[in-house]
Amino acid sequence: MNIRQLIEKNRSIRKFDESYTITQEQLTGFIDLARISASAANRQPLKYILVTTPDDREKLYPCLSWAGYLTTWEGPDKGQRPTAYIVVLGDKEISDKFGIDPGIASQSIMLGVTEAGLGGCMLASVKREKLRADFAIPDQYEILLVIALGKPVEKVVLETIKENDVKYWRDAEAVHHVPKRTIDEIILRR
Amino acid sequence: MNIRQLIEKNRSIRKFDESYTITQEQLTGFIDLARISASAANRQPLKYILVTTPDDREKLYPCLSWAGYLTTWEGPDKGQRPTAYIVVLGDKEISDKFGIDPGIASQSIMLGVTEAGLGGCMLASVKREKLRADFAIPDQYEILLVIALGKPVEKVVLETIKENDVKYWRDAEAVHHVPKRTIDEIILRR
Repeated sequence: MNIRQLIEKNRSIRKFDESYTITQEQLTGFIDLARISASAANRQPLKYILVTTPDDREKLYPCLSWAGYLTTWEGPDKGQRPTAYIVVLGDKEISDKFGIDPGIASQSIMLGVTEAGLGGCMLASVKREKLRADFAIPDQYEILLVIALGKPVEKVVLETIKENDVKYWRDAEAVHHVPKRTIDEIILRR
Repeated sequence: MNIRQLIEKNRSIRKFDESYTITQEQLTGFIDLARISASAANRQPLKYILVTTPDDREKLYPCLSWAGYLTTWEGPDKGQRPTAYIVVLGDKEISDKFGIDPGIASQSIMLGVTEAGLGGCMLASVKREKLRADFAIPDQYEILLVIALGKPVEKVVLETIKENDVKYWRDAEAVHHVPKRTIDEIILRR
């Protein structure tokens, strides 16, 4: 798979086969991709917590918000929930700002995840105070985002945007459609 | 090349073969990788300006700061400068915050660049007011970063961090060494 194919395949996935286990070795490998990615001034302030046990997953799930545009869908049902989470933290003892590091790291992780036949979703809409309390995350760490992971059981397709409407939608077959702006809209000057 | 090999190869490059031309088609292809990457709430607020002509490159170069830890090196000499730049902007008419979108997009671009045998450096240390004035960038757009691109003519290697010192260095053969934290340092809990 070349990088174009991999990025095309790397869609935000929100329904998973909950019977599928992601191993610690896999998760460590994904984070190692973030570890060797670029970091502003090479400070490397990002730290990670892996959440994999059924108890911890059940504790983390209510800290997340899913798919804001699907107003009648509150998130994956039991049986279709993520089987692992990576909580991405910023270590404030290393840096007071994290810039574009979290996006770089998360994209590296997601491309590793996708290449492994898995999928996931970067969730920045997180109940941070609850997550911090429930997982006893020290104040030293800023909670940046949560990456939800699992074996995908949904189909996601790209669409060309119409009338500037960025809202994704699900069709009658539960296929998830994501409208993207055109290349000519996003390149202002050549 | 699998994703691990590609990310390993994707080092921040700061010296280029200035006789090598990157085509508009290549640049468009790199930005198309960002276009189809994830975006918070699928808002897709990022816009791009390509800087490719010799005149524009000469105008943009003084807006950048290079390799803060190499205090005796002010940036690439003429003949080794980038042959293209991508200015990454946030469209404030679409969103008032850009979150992790710039990092996701920039990493997608850089992986496409690397796969094509090219290299580059994400530069967030930018003289924004000068850049805005010199390139007549409207206030509607926040200047997020500049990606400098070209054909690499330097060697960059990863090192294991020692004594918590994140500063990269160049050796007598001008090889650029980048110390990275260990996986056990960055995964707080499994």
